[in-house]
Amino acid sequence: VALRVLLLGLGHVGRRLVEILAERSRHPALTGLDLAVVGIVTRNHGALLDARGIDPREVVSDFRRTGFLPGSAGSGAADGLAAIRSLDYDVLVELTTLDVERRGEPAITHVRHALSRGRHVVTANKGPIAWAYTELKALADESGCALLHEATVMDGTPVFNLARRCLRGNTVERLDGILNATTNFVLGALERGVSLAEAVAAAQRIGVAEADPSLDLDGWDAAVKLAALANVLMGASMAPEEVERESLAAVGRERLLAAHARGSRVKMVCEAVREGARVIGRVCAREIPVGHPFAAVEGTGSILRLTTDILGKVLIVEEDPDLSTTAYGVLSDLYAIAEGEWTGRPAGG
Amino acid sequence: VALRVLLLGLGHVGRRLVEILAERSRHPALTGLDLAVVGIVTRNHGALLDARGIDPREVVSDFRRTGFLPGSAGSGAADGLAAIRSLDYDVLVELTTLDVERRGEPAITHVRHALSRGRHVVTANKGPIAWAYTELKALADESGCALLHEATVMDGTPVFNLARRCLRGNTVERLDGILNATTNFVLGALERGVSLAEAVAAAQRIGVAEADPSLDLDGWDAAVKLAALANVLMGASMAPEEVERESLAAVGRERLLAAHARGSRVKMVCEAVREGARVIGRVCAREIPVGHPFAAVEGTGSILRLTTDILGKVLIVEEDPDLSTTAYGVLSDLYAIAEGEWTGRPAGG
Repeated sequence: VALRVLLLGLGHVGRRLVEILAERSRHPALTGLDLAVVGIVTRNHGALLDARGIDPREVVSDFRRTGFLPGSAGSGAADGLAAIRSLDYDVLVELTTLDVERRGEPAITHVRHALSRGRHVVTANKGPIAWAYTELKALADESGCALLHEATVMDGTPVFNLARRCLRGNTVERLDGILNATTNFVLGALERGVSLAEAVAAAQRIGVAEADPSLDLDGWDAAVKLAALANVLMGASMAPEEVERESLAAVGRERLLAAHARGSRVKMVCEAVREGARVIGRVCAREIPVGHPFAAVEGTGSILRLTTDILGKVLIVEEDPDLSTTAYGVLSDLYAIAEGEWTGRPAGG
Repeated sequence: VALRVLLLGLGHVGRRLVEILAERSRHPALTGLDLAVVGIVTRNHGALLDARGIDPREVVSDFRRTGFLPGSAGSGAADGLAAIRSLDYDVLVELTTLDVERRGEPAITHVRHALSRGRHVVTANKGPIAWAYTELKALADESGCALLHEATVMDGTPVFNLARRCLRGNTVERLDGILNATTNFVLGALERGVSLAEAVAAAQRIGVAEADPSLDLDGWDAAVKLAALANVLMGASMAPEEVERESLAAVGRERLLAAHARGSRVKMVCEAVREGARVIGRVCAREIPVGHPFAAVEGTGSILRLTTDILGKVLIVEEDPDLSTTAYGVLSDLYAIAEGEWTGRPAGG
């Protein structure tokens, strides 16, 4: 029985996900994943529902031609929450854009309603995990449902699934890493003598930075990711606004040159450490000696180090990610559900 | 029901494993693993059997005092194969020493007999995976049993479990990394002006190099690990003797200095690449630019990069491993079995 998926949102990641599904025959190992997209509901591109399963090839070709879902050209915004509450599906895939000012809403509401109906949730939107993880995870456990979110940190590179499935028995004592692609990309450009404005524009051209880059530059994106990691991996109850942040704007080129003269690079480092019963989070510019794994993270790459009580230190690195990397984060979570990690038996239905 | 474990061999890793079990209360997350060691059979330290479960604290204290298992002082070599064939247990944990000259025997025979009896196998001995994976995996699948081997490459850092559990749907196109701790440690010492003999002696003192270091220096250990990785992750049928090897002895200090002058470091790199339908393996000295993640691997650390068709490139890094890191590799495999990844229901019995 195929896993019936409802997609909410169809931005870059959602479109790449649908493209991968349309090109399945090019990925031999992917054939084991049996899923049917039964609905795609968007704010700006229309909506498409088909209980028998949507043909992803049709979505890809229509979207490329019209910028809309098939049959949706000119239609108004679809009601995502109504779809979540009324349609029949096994998994909600929440792909809407993070709204930091609204502290993760309306994505939190979307997730809550799906879990309340006993539906699994996969979210690429960081809001629910950064601001409401404790509540939503309890709801998921109560409903016997999955709440998965691999794509929220380091795109599809295994981070949460790594900890859940490959580090059992360990306690994460601390975590640190480089988690924001825009600031890392911009720091590299600043080192090469490019101005901040030019560097940000270049990051926007390659699709890394948003039209408004301040969420990246001011450390909000990193703080949201750090809160998500601390909440899930260290049992913290950390809201992003509790994370101490340093803005990239405060890091002048002089500091980069002085670091270079000392054989170091400046990197924006995220860290979460235990202090007594609490977990403290920081995003700050740090001077890292060349030769340290953090100094080797170039461009849009990222790195996370977990320090654990038994295994010791393990680092996972993402190199040259693209949209497929993020889309895979969603696919890897769908695999976990399709293979019965929650129900104890394969597939949906 | 506790998972009943038979340990074969009690070297450094086995003793550390028993120590961790004896100190479980210090590792809060470990309490979820319900296992009973029902037998420990060794060549040099006696044997101990107890169907109700051996007390690991007693093993630790007796071994520290006498160098033998409780009640075994002065006894001869125990018959491992007889124990595998006759005792009642759920999982064989194969911890005997790799014998390269005998191409992985007798460990291969041990694993074959346990699987034939329908028992799960966890091996820290690389031989069965490097020389007999295809046969043994088919036997395991036929018997509905697990054949797990996380500790064979990069100690307990997730490599095989990472690929099996967190990269589903991807095809591994190539893999490369630094996998031998002794040569990496020795290269670092050579860079600092230490002689080869002194560097090897230092590696022996910290317990990284064996009394006979030639298996490390000549690339055999790396070739065995590379074959294991290629066989499991790329579906190869690669024997270690088919891996092209370069000896560290052929890498003079001049080459390290010349690389340094060019802003690079020499590292012993393992790589497996597809060439048509075949997978080719090499272990060779490579000049790596400082700033590359491989150049940041210090001392006894290691790194593995997997290049996949959907996710892209993912790297996993082991930093400052100790015996607990390797022992955890065994524990993580026991978790997979105890949680029912093979039987579809938790625990043994």
